[in-house]
Amino acid sequence: METIVLKFGGTSVGSTDRISAVADLIKTACNEASPVVVVSAMSGETNRLIDLAKSFGTEPNKREFDALVSTGEQVSASLVSIALNQLGLKAKSLSAAQFGMKTTSNFSRAKILDLDKDVILKTIEDGYIPIITGFQGVNNDGDTTTMGRGGSDTTAVAIAAAIKSKRCDIYTDVDGIYTTDPRIVPNAKKLDLISMEEMLELAGQGAKVMQIRAVEFANKYKVLVRVLSSFEPGSGTLILQEEEGMEDAVITGIASQKDQTKFTLHGVVDTPGIASGILSPVSDSGIEVDVIVQNVSVSGKTDFTFTVGNADRAEVESVLTKKMQGISYDELIIDEGIGKVSLVGVGMRSHAGIASTAFNTLADAGINIQMISTSEIKITIVISGDQLEEAVKTLHSAFKLGD
Amino acid sequence: METIVLKFGGTSVGSTDRISAVADLIKTACNEASPVVVVSAMSGETNRLIDLAKSFGTEPNKREFDALVSTGEQVSASLVSIALNQLGLKAKSLSAAQFGMKTTSNFSRAKILDLDKDVILKTIEDGYIPIITGFQGVNNDGDTTTMGRGGSDTTAVAIAAAIKSKRCDIYTDVDGIYTTDPRIVPNAKKLDLISMEEMLELAGQGAKVMQIRAVEFANKYKVLVRVLSSFEPGSGTLILQEEEGMEDAVITGIASQKDQTKFTLHGVVDTPGIASGILSPVSDSGIEVDVIVQNVSVSGKTDFTFTVGNADRAEVESVLTKKMQGISYDELIIDEGIGKVSLVGVGMRSHAGIASTAFNTLADAGINIQMISTSEIKITIVISGDQLEEAVKTLHSAFKLGD
Repeated sequence: METIVLKFGGTSVGSTDRISAVADLIKTACNEASPVVVVSAMSGETNRLIDLAKSFGTEPNKREFDALVSTGEQVSASLVSIALNQLGLKAKSLSAAQFGMKTTSNFSRAKILDLDKDVILKTIEDGYIPIITGFQGVNNDGDTTTMGRGGSDTTAVAIAAAIKSKRCDIYTDVDGIYTTDPRIVPNAKKLDLISMEEMLELAGQGAKVMQIRAVEFANKYKVLVRVLSSFEPGSGTLILQEEEGMEDAVITGIASQKDQTKFTLHGVVDTPGIASGILSPVSDSGIEVDVIVQNVSVSGKTDFTFTVGNADRAEVESVLTKKMQGISYDELIIDEGIGKVSLVGVGMRSHAGIASTAFNTLADAGINIQMISTSEIKITIVISGDQLEEAVKTLHSAFKLGD
Repeated sequence: METIVLKFGGTSVGSTDRISAVADLIKTACNEASPVVVVSAMSGETNRLIDLAKSFGTEPNKREFDALVSTGEQVSASLVSIALNQLGLKAKSLSAAQFGMKTTSNFSRAKILDLDKDVILKTIEDGYIPIITGFQGVNNDGDTTTMGRGGSDTTAVAIAAAIKSKRCDIYTDVDGIYTTDPRIVPNAKKLDLISMEEMLELAGQGAKVMQIRAVEFANKYKVLVRVLSSFEPGSGTLILQEEEGMEDAVITGIASQKDQTKFTLHGVVDTPGIASGILSPVSDSGIEVDVIVQNVSVSGKTDFTFTVGNADRAEVESVLTKKMQGISYDELIIDEGIGKVSLVGVGMRSHAGIASTAFNTLADAGINIQMISTSEIKITIVISGDQLEEAVKTLHSAFKLGD
């Protein structure tokens, strides 16, 4: 049986009119393969539930918080099923408990352990379109868990991998992946194809179209993913496993991310194991650390710097001051106002001089570079948050990425 | 272990402020026994979800409709748990699936088959206050079901019966059971005690304080029930199993119900089995029939009349015209504009003349009686809906029930 996974994000199911449009898209997909649908909560709903929870205090009980916000996806899944039934198609919502989406117990940041693909396949064999609640799972105690923002993408890709779907279509409110954010650079160009590797780097840097964990999952399990709009027709951007067919551009795109916080431990006594000594308690708390830079040691002391999202600022500070054992340092410096800009491209491997062009471009624009981190196909530059837009525009123009 | 079940209706958990007040009530209850809490959806939430479902058509898929509206109780249960945690009390929400509330598959009108009391008791033993989603269950296929409006009362009483609680407190927005609706008769009197039998008759006739099925359950399993307000202090009305301690009033209270529809099959050929021939297909559809009257047969033909809530009008009409086999009649008469008024009292048994006093009182007020139905402790009179308030006021005064 050939299947196709269709995932609809919060704006795609943001109103009953949008849900009717989604039902039409699902009906059309039936012509290609048996659809399996994954939905997010209606846009605004998750925030409404979070606000309710926080009205009792800033740190609501984590188990109950997850049980609460998970109701948003059940509402969407039932409404999409109802809309499909009205079109004469048989559909059945499946909650995480119903299709056995097992996760770790790390509330609000749970990771997928296993899922029962037989329930999904049986539902299809019985003649129903499964409409699956994204973003959530159950732990071994039967408690409801959630996977954090964007978790529905991961649900969709995990299901596509499990049932070996021909493709996983991620429907969103943009029509594909662009060379950079079109709201910052108006002549940014839509890409028809992008490599999985490039997508990984872009998503991680806040391209915002698809969640990084989902891209990693797709990469690992060789799931063919397409990103496209549920609001307007179009073929979107296909994320290729292989590099064949890729344009040979040096730089494929520019990603940017604001609302980041930089933590610097200044004057750390440099002994073996300091990196894990600092970061283990942070990652044990389930916080995703982004850029990490450690400078060379001078007179036995070094500076250790890493960035996280602003939302995790308080928890990281608490972990660093309370749980970090045996690390001696002079000062903890916290800088909330930072931004990151990243140049991404598989072509970068074979072209020297990309980095220096980028650094020169920023210097000419009067933008000070605070940190640099590089991988084979990416250069990440940390700058002041209020210069982020300017940096993206300048680099997009310097590398001639526009239409 | 001594337990007490506390049930909070929609208005009692209607806002985050109300939920904080409920948390305080639960904290106080801890001094009496281990509390087990059952909650309804926040008032307005169920209607919001129903409106969403009906935006796709008047008859949403029943399985999905139940999965959708059941999210309302999960939201309440998690919020109450969060509020209790903020007060320093450990609490855990339990969904129907989590504590094994098994029901029939009759969506929106499911009946309780079984529940796993061990999960509830284990939760208490682990030091948590169980906060249970009322109104819902799961069928044998693992689908979510709901029990219809007021179902949370039934959940509460069923749990109290299963775990042998010392009492089941039904918190609502009124401070007890009154001799009649105080909105119609301002000097209506609050009762401190009422017999279970009288409560059964009153609830069935729309006293609106507690659902009839829940009262039946309490009666059957000998659960001590108290009805009281979550908005203001007070001891409410205790619903006694035994008649001891009851005031020897002839009439205890007057119930009334509007928005009823009367169906009359005129000129039915009178053969054995016509009552079940007419009503079986109706009850097979899960519709609750209220007053049933069949007149004596004249020249081999009879009139068969029954009433249902206005909400069921269309379905009953469809059943009567399509599914009723082998019943021959002259005409189907449907009258939507009717109301019912009922006199209730265990003292009625031993007092002749109650019925004639009631009929004379109505006649003097110019109110025409359309149907009469009596039980040992109740007289139900069907009249025109627009004379209902007048009938209640007149009877309340005639039987001197006021303060």
